[in-house]
Formats: sequence, C-alpha cells, structure tokens
Amino acid sequence: MSGFPPLVDQHCHGVLRSGPAGRSGFESCLTEAHALPRPAAPGASPFDTQLGFALRRWCAPVLGLEPHCPPEEYLLRRAELGTAEVTRRMLRASGISAYLVDTGLPGALLTPGEIAETAGAEAYEIVRLERLAERAADTARDVHAFLSGVSDALHAATRTARGFKSVVAYRCGLDFEPAPPNTSLVRTHAERWLTSRSPGDRLTDPVLVRHLLWSAVRTGLPLQLHTGFGDPDLRLDRCDPLLLTDFVRATEAYGTPLVLLHCYPYHRGAGYLAAVFPHVHVDFGLTVPYVGARSGAVLAELLELVPFGKLLFSTDAYGLPELYVVGARLFEEAVSGVTGEWVDRGAWSAPDAERVTGLIAGGSAARLYGLDGLDGLEGSGGPGGPDVSDGPRTEV
Amino acid sequence: MSGFPPLVDQHCHGVLRSGPAGRSGFESCLTEAHALPRPAAPGASPFDTQLGFALRRWCAPVLGLEPHCPPEEYLLRRAELGTAEVTRRMLRASGISAYLVDTGLPGALLTPGEIAETAGAEAYEIVRLERLAERAADTARDVHAFLSGVSDALHAATRTARGFKSVVAYRCGLDFEPAPPNTSLVRTHAERWLTSRSPGDRLTDPVLVRHLLWSAVRTGLPLQLHTGFGDPDLRLDRCDPLLLTDFVRATEAYGTPLVLLHCYPYHRGAGYLAAVFPHVHVDFGLTVPYVGARSGAVLAELLELVPFGKLLFSTDAYGLPELYVVGARLFEEAVSGVTGEWVDRGAWSAPDAERVTGLIAGGSAARLYGLDGLDGLEGSGGPGGPDVSDGPRTEV
Amino acid sequence: MSGFPPLVDQHCHGVLRSGPAGRSGFESCLTEAHALPRPAAPGASPFDTQLGFALRRWCAPVLGLEPHCPPEEYLLRRAELGTAEVTRRMLRASGISAYLVDTGLPGALLTPGEIAETAGAEAYEIVRLERLAERAADTARDVHAFLSGVSDALHAATRTARGFKSVVAYRCGLDFEPAPPNTSLVRTHAERWLTSRSPGDRLTDPVLVRHLLWSAVRTGLPLQLHTGFGDPDLRLDRCDPLLLTDFVRATEAYGTPLVLLHCYPYHRGAGYLAAVFPHVHVDFGLTVPYVGARSGAVLAELLELVPFGKLLFSTDAYGLPELYVVGARLFEEAVSGVTGEWVDRGAWSAPDAERVTGLIAGGSAARLYGLDGLDGLEGSGGPGGPDVSDGPRTEV
Repeated sequence: MSGFPPLVDQHCHGVLRSGPAGRSGFESCLTEAHALPRPAAPGASPFDTQLGFALRRWCAPVLGLEPHCPPEEYLLRRAELGTAEVTRRMLRASGISAYLVDTGLPGALLTPGEIAETAGAEAYEIVRLERLAERAADTARDVHAFLSGVSDALHAATRTARGFKSVVAYRCGLDFEPAPPNTSLVRTHAERWLTSRSPGDRLTDPVLVRHLLWSAVRTGLPLQLHTGFGDPDLRLDRCDPLLLTDFVRATEAYGTPLVLLHCYPYHRGAGYLAAVFPHVHVDFGLTVPYVGARSGAVLAELLELVPFGKLLFSTDAYGLPELYVVGARLFEEAVSGVTGEWVDRGAWSAPDAERVTGLIAGGSAARLYGLDGLDGLEGSGGPGGPDVSDGPRTEV
Repeated sequence: MSGFPPLVDQHCHGVLRSGPAGRSGFESCLTEAHALPRPAAPGASPFDTQLGFALRRWCAPVLGLEPHCPPEEYLLRRAELGTAEVTRRMLRASGISAYLVDTGLPGALLTPGEIAETAGAEAYEIVRLERLAERAADTARDVHAFLSGVSDALHAATRTARGFKSVVAYRCGLDFEPAPPNTSLVRTHAERWLTSRSPGDRLTDPVLVRHLLWSAVRTGLPLQLHTGFGDPDLRLDRCDPLLLTDFVRATEAYGTPLVLLHCYPYHRGAGYLAAVFPHVHVDFGLTVPYVGARSGAVLAELLELVPFGKLLFSTDAYGLPELYVVGARLFEEAVSGVTGEWVDRGAWSAPDAERVTGLIAGGSAARLYGLDGLDGLEGSGGPGGPDVSDGPRTEV
Repeated sequence: MSGFPPLVDQHCHGVLRSGPAGRSGFESCLTEAHALPRPAAPGASPFDTQLGFALRRWCAPVLGLEPHCPPEEYLLRRAELGTAEVTRRMLRASGISAYLVDTGLPGALLTPGEIAETAGAEAYEIVRLERLAERAADTARDVHAFLSGVSDALHAATRTARGFKSVVAYRCGLDFEPAPPNTSLVRTHAERWLTSRSPGDRLTDPVLVRHLLWSAVRTGLPLQLHTGFGDPDLRLDRCDPLLLTDFVRATEAYGTPLVLLHCYPYHRGAGYLAAVFPHVHVDFGLTVPYVGARSGAVLAELLELVPFGKLLFSTDAYGLPELYVVGARLFEEAVSGVTGEWVDRGAWSAPDAERVTGLIAGGSAARLYGLDGLDGLEGSGGPGGPDVSDGPRTEV
C-alpha cells in the first residue's frame, strides 16, 4: 500500500523453522482451537473463517497466485516453493520495519535475529515472564537459587530486551490479587512449587506470577499483558481487561507502561483504561487477523475512547509467516478505511488522520520501546502541539 | 428474495391457534416484557421498536397492504382475513423449507405437524428438557417413577425428535455447576422437589436441571441452550454464554453438538466458543427480529470469530405467524448485505459468499439435525475441500 | 442544523464561571482521567481523542475559526473573546431548548438560572442525592437531625426540582443490595458515618446510599442513575447497568421512572432493561461527546432493543460550554445519519424516522419531566396510535 507509514509489529512470535506438516498442520496454525475434528464438517475448517478467507486473499498473490484461490492450490504452491522461500517472501512482503518478538513460546522457531535477517528489518526481544521463571525453576537447586535466578534473569533482560510479557490471563485469570506479595509469602509459594513440579511444568501459582509482574513493573520497561480471547486454556470471561483495574491503579505511580494485548471482545473496556490511566496502552494484535474483513469495524470501536497515541499495531503472528502479511494488510486497510470515512464526512481533518495513522502504525511503539534508530517513525507535532512533542520521556 | 438458498428455521415455536386478542394481545406478542403499561407512553409501545417497524415493513405486503402502513390499518386487515388465512399466508410467504419446533411452550399452539401442513414444508420436534421433567413430575407417584419417567421420555424423544432444548439460563443462570450430579444427589433433590411442588410448578432445582442436561448430552442429539436476552424472568448478566465455558469443556469428549441460541448481546463471546470448541454451534434467532434494521450489523459481529459452518439461522418465532416472515426476510437481507459488501471490496470471493450463505441459511442445520430428505440443502465442497465434504458425520 | 426538532438536554452540569486556566486546565476538562502526564506523549493529550477532534470541528466555527484549526489557535481565540462571550456563544449555538442541570458537582459553576439566562432557554434542577445527604451531614447535630434533614431536603426538592440523580455507581458499584434498608439499620449506619466523617467527606456507606435511592423512588420523580464509564474513581465492570436488575425489579411496582445514564460500553444491556421493564429509560449522554465520530455507531447499537420513546438525549456537559455544542451537534448528526440510512434502504418510513427523532431529541424528556411549557416538544401520535397519545401520564 503506497504511502502507508512504517509499521512496528509490537507483539509477535517466531516463525516455524521447518513449516507446518501438511494441510492439517497448516490448519492448526490458523486456529486457537486445540483439537480439530478430522474430517471437519463443511464450513468448520479453519479455512472457513475470516482468517482463512483473509489468508487466501492477501497471501496468494505473494506466492504468485490469484487472490482467493482454493486452499489446495495454495498449499501445493507453498510446498513447491519450500518453507525458506515462503518465509522470505512473506516477511519481505509484510512491509514491517521492526518486530518485537515474544520469545517465550515453544517450537522450533526463528529467533529475532533470524527474523531480522530474513525480513531485512529490525527485530527486538520481549521476554515472557512465566517462561523466564520456568527456566529458572528447571535449573535451580533451592528456593534461594530460584528467586536469585529470576531476579538475575529479569535484570539481564532489561539490558537486552525491550519489554516484558505476561500470560497471567491464561495462568490465573485477570482477577488476581493486585498488590505485590510479600517476600515470605513468595518464598513459601516458591518452596511449594519447586517441590511439587516436574521439569517443564507451567507456572500457575498466582503468588509467584504476581511476584513476576511486580518485579517487571519495578524495572520500568513496558509490560505487555495478554487480555481477551486466545486458545481454550483460558476462560474468556476472566480475561476482561477491566478485571485488571485495581492492578492498574496500584502500578500507576511507577509510570511503567502497561500494554493490554488483543482485548477482544472487551476492547471498549480496554480503551476506557487507556483513556483514564496515563500508563495504559492498548494493542489489538490477535484480533486483526482473526476478525479479517471486520478489522475496520473493530478498530473503529477501539478508537472510541482510546487516546490515539496509545493504540499500537501488532500482528501476534506465530508459526506461519503468512500471519505477518495478513495482519499488516488488514491493519492498513482498516486504518485507511476508518479514518478515510471520517475525513470524507468532515469529522476528522486529513492531516490529523495522517498523523494518527503514523502513531498507531509505529510511531507510538517506537517511542514506547525506545526504537531510536528507525527512520520516519516519529509522529509530527500537529495539534498535540510544541509542548508535548519534546521534553523527557516520562514513561520509560 | 430470488435465488436465496433454502431456509431451515432451526429454532422456533408454535403459532397461536386462535390469534391474539385485540391490539393489546397482539402487542404482547411483540415484546419480551411481562407488563405493558396501559396506555403506553408515546414511543413505548412494542410497535415503536425495531421489531414493530420490521413487522410493518415486511408483513403488510403479505396482507396486501403498503409497507409501513399504520398499526391500526394492519390490525384491521388482519382481523378481516382471520387467523387461519393470516397464518397460511405468513407461513407460505416465509420461504422456510423446514421448521425445528420447540414444543415446550404453553398456549394453544399449532403442532409441528400442523405447521408443516399449513406451510407446505417439513417440520420436526425439539424436546424441551425442563417441560419433559415437569410432565414426568405431574404424573409420578414417587422418586423412582419420576426418574424412570424422565429417562423413558428422553429415550423416546431420541426416536421422534431431532434435538433437545434447555432453558437452564432462565431457571438457574448459566453459571451452574458444570459436572454431572451423582445419582444419590439427584435422588435427594428429586425427593425434595416432588414433595414440595404443586402440579404445573416449574423446575428450578439446579441439580435436577443438570441431571437433565447431562442425560441429554449422553444421547448425542444436538442440545440447544438458551443464552442471552429474553423475558425479564432471566437476569441477562447470568446468561452470558461464556459462563458455560466449563460445561462446554466437560462435554467436549462426548461430541454432542451444543447449539447456543440468541446470544445477544454476548454474541461475540459465543462466536469465540464456537471457534475453539469443535462441538459448539451458534444461533442468533431471537436477535434478528428484535434488532430489526440492525440485523446485518449484529450478524457481522457474529461472523468475526465463528467458523462459518457453525452459525445457524432461526426465527425463534412464537405466537404470531408474522414472526416467521420478519425473521426470514431480515435474515436474508442481513446475510446478503454483509457478505455482499465484503465481496464488493474484495475481502471475500463471490463463490465463497454463496457457499457460506447456503451453510448458514440451512445447509449446516440440515447436517446437524440429519434432515436428509431436503433438497438443495447441502453446501458444496468449495474451499473446505474434498477431505471434509464426505466421510462419517462425527457429531450426531 | 435546519429542521431538527427541539433539544432537551436531560442531563448536564454547570459551566465554569471563570473558564479553565490555560491549556492544561482546558485539557483537564476534556478527559475523565485524573492525572495527565506533563508533558503528554504525542497523541496522548486529550486533544488527540475523539472528543478533542470533535471539539475542534464543531466549536471552532462558533468562535469564527476554521473547523479543525490547531488547538493553539483555538485557545488563543478563546482567550481573546473571554469566558463570558465564549459561554454566551456556545450556549446559544447549541440549539438546546431546555437544560436539566444536576447541581451536585463542585466548582464555581453557573446556576440553572444563569444558564437559562445566558442561553435564552429553559433550565431546571436535578438534585443529586449523595450531595443532598452530605450537605445534611455537614450541619446535623445528631442522627435524628441528619435523617430529618435528608427527608426534608428530599421533600423540598420535589417542589423545586424535576428529578433526582444518584452516583451510587461511583460510591458503591451497581451490585448493591437491592432491597430498601430498614429504619434501624439506617440509623446505625448514619450514627457510624456521622461519628467518623469530617466535613466535606463523601458518602460511600452503601446502606445510606440505598436509603437515599429508596426515598427518592418513593417520591415518584424520575431518578437518574450513573451507569457505565466515567472517571477512574469507578470500576467500570461494577457499573454495568445489568447489575441493577434486581433493583429495577424491586422498584417496578412504584412506577417511578429510572433513567440509566451514559451506559457505555454496556448500552446494549441498558437497552434490554428498557425493553422489558416499563419504568426504565436510557440516556447516552457522556458517551456522545467522548466517542465523537462514532456517535452514530453507538446510537445504532442502542436503538437495537430500546423502545424508541425510552431513549433520551443529553450532553452531560460540565465545565466547558463547548461540551453543549459538541454534544448537540454530534447527537443531531448521529440521529440523522442512522435513521436516514434506514429510511434510504426502506427499513423505516420517513414519517416514523421524523417522529422517533422528535421523541429522542426532546419529546420523551419533556413528558417524563413534565416540561409542559415548551413548544413543539410533544411527538405526534403516528403509529403509536390514538390509544397511547393521550390519557393520564402513568409514570410521574
């Protein structure tokens, strides 16, 4: 899309090194469901969803095919080209200038460095707190070693990573106790967990997860929090970002940016939090590819309350390199469509629309994560005016 | 509407045998409210709602009147023609090929057989679980006879009906204990209920309702569950389909299709459940006539996450035959409008839109309920591909 | 906007007597946030929200500037003209015929009488219950004097005010115990509160707030209840109007109109309550200015279930006179856009759209609050028909 400002994908994951195995492997990468019935009923395959339709629309041309070609044709062409070539084409076609990669997911995935090299772009790491703690637990001899290990790993991450990520939504729900747990309680729970766990076990102890959250908040680096829909391991009604309200209040004085990810279908509530708490930002990553043709409609809902500089683009791409293309194209189409309609009927001015587009696409993320080396990523002053476009960064 | 695929109304009720009495009787059939103030304030009559406007639009022409003619003129013409003729005209005009009739509502209503004959269409029974249990209780001498009666009636229903329906949302809320109750607990509660109840009393005991739900799940027939809005007997915030999440998880291994009815305003959460659990399907029956001119907007929200073959048309018509016409016309207009816009801007292909329309209108319901005799109701293979359009039905 | 029916602003507040101080003072009046970072990040100023954009669009021309002129230019011109002139221009430009002013907010604000005089319009008082009780507590010597003071003040208000308002959402959340508290419980809590409070302290005791609510219900005057979003003192998830369901049921027999204010993002649930309970009405005041260009979209969602005569216009304007202009223009544009689209595609008739517009704009509010002196504010009979357009007012 010519003239669209640079994209910073502020939340994504790695790409499968060897590609998915067969049609069913590919389909598994297109859904949040755990189990797919084989054979699926007509219309119940992941290809028969908004994501499936969007993938055929936007990715087929990248492989030299017609938009909306049948899945079989798409998969055949994909196999012909091979995983490396498909990955290279998709990452380059995505138009993304910088990737912030949550490295805490399992699988044989490309590293941030490999993504950067393949894409010809920048890539940075986001450290997943729960994975950091699980790694520390896998090697710790005792509670002291575990807690020191966590502390050291967090400290090390502040030098190499651009932010933290938590999946407390999956592990405990967002209605967790908001206050930081005291040291002796943390020790007791660490003892209990280390004693009972087998290597590789997930961290679900709410006291330890809270300890991680508060440790991350104290570093000042942006903290991304999964909210809203995801795979069936979570209970969606316990992932409403409004359940975080007391945690948001408790952390406000620290100034550490909280970035609420995905948010759907509770994105209006997330917009409210961003409107009334200075340190809250909102992303709608996973939502864009999954709602496909409806991305503009959902974006418009988000743009009701959220201050425009607090909304951040991401793809949440994981596994398939196609998801970067789908996320980027749908996002551009959504922003252009929504703001274009407002300009057409005089509700917004054209320069405002352009400025806001730049902020959402990447300008705000570049500021938030300190991606100083990127060209053209700062939003111009505009109506925000001279008293806000300079001065110290208060948030990081 | 020429060229629209066959409609299967997968959830509806009977039509009043003698028609409603007067304007106030008619209005009572156009609202979920219990009590209407007489006289209503201007704009507060059920005629001054989306349903009222849609009825005047779509049904007036069926009686030979102009669309949007005044309510008085409509009611006068209705009285002239008489209930039998109005019913015949409406059912035939609806264009519905097959009716799945929940026979558990009170009132002097046409039976499925009479609906089929009047409409010149197919009709099948859906058995309402709570009514089945209340009937068994009305005649049972003791607990043993009651529980045997329930079990026998359920077994008999599997031979004559196409599915079950539960109104646990009304009776207990959807936040009920998800696990099946054990036999001795069921006996204790049955004892208590039979002792205290008067003939005709509603079943509200949560243990007995759970016993019914689990008994139905074990039959493998589709189980319809009221979710979302309805009359003021329910508390809407306890009818969010996401409150069913643990019940959905607990029943997944059985493969029994769960069909979430209505869902509004929690339809996006219902779409999520359908996206991540293979046995969950979604209907937006009651919502369509009640939101009227907004049907397309609500449908578009539903089509964000739900796999397209898991969304089912219904009217939830009850009492007035007009509700079949209103539901069918609004549904057709909604689907055509929403998918047409996506085709126009290239987000969907035209063949995909046609195929998905066929699935939602009736193809998926025909499969789910085993309506094998209906012509033209199977969706074609299309992008779902050959590996999904044949093979054994896994769900029923 | 020529031809738009008269507007009754059924919920608003006073205008700052001396105007806000500087840019930061002005920005503080454009957000529900407590603390704004200085300097704000680009795009995070209240000017970079839908409200900020709508203000530049609609209010700049009232000051003789181009729509969407930069904030600096707007603020400069505002300072040149002075507070009194800006207030006069804005109130007169708003086109509002009658103001219902909640006088319970702090600050040096214009009184209803001053607003009426400045605007050349009518103004009436709405009495805020919590403020009434706090004033009574400030002067009461003991519990008896306090409770008598509350009772006397309520009684006096029924002679001078047009309704009551409660912010129980802020003070206790909407999940409060629905039943009226008994006298001895009220006395105990009054004793406790009077003993512990310092002058000026807010009332947050749930028993005393319930006592106020029930005392107001017994007067029969309309009772406005804050629901949905607001400043960060509230927890939004505890302000879902559906949490009021049991209170709504408990008060139904009194017939006292309950008016749910704002409602966002739970406005669909509010529409449901209005659809099924005769005494429930809905307002979306604060929502309109805050969602700006999205007002039409939110209005359309509200118009899904709410009977059309039960939806009321308001601005919730507070502090800045601009907020009256923004609220009125956005509302008119929203109603015209939404109903115009429905008329264009035949879903509504043009006379119906005109009648409904008149009801929402001011006709229903004029009836509900007994504003008999206003010209042209009664909706015509139309499809509601002769049996509903006359007869006794049942509600007040």
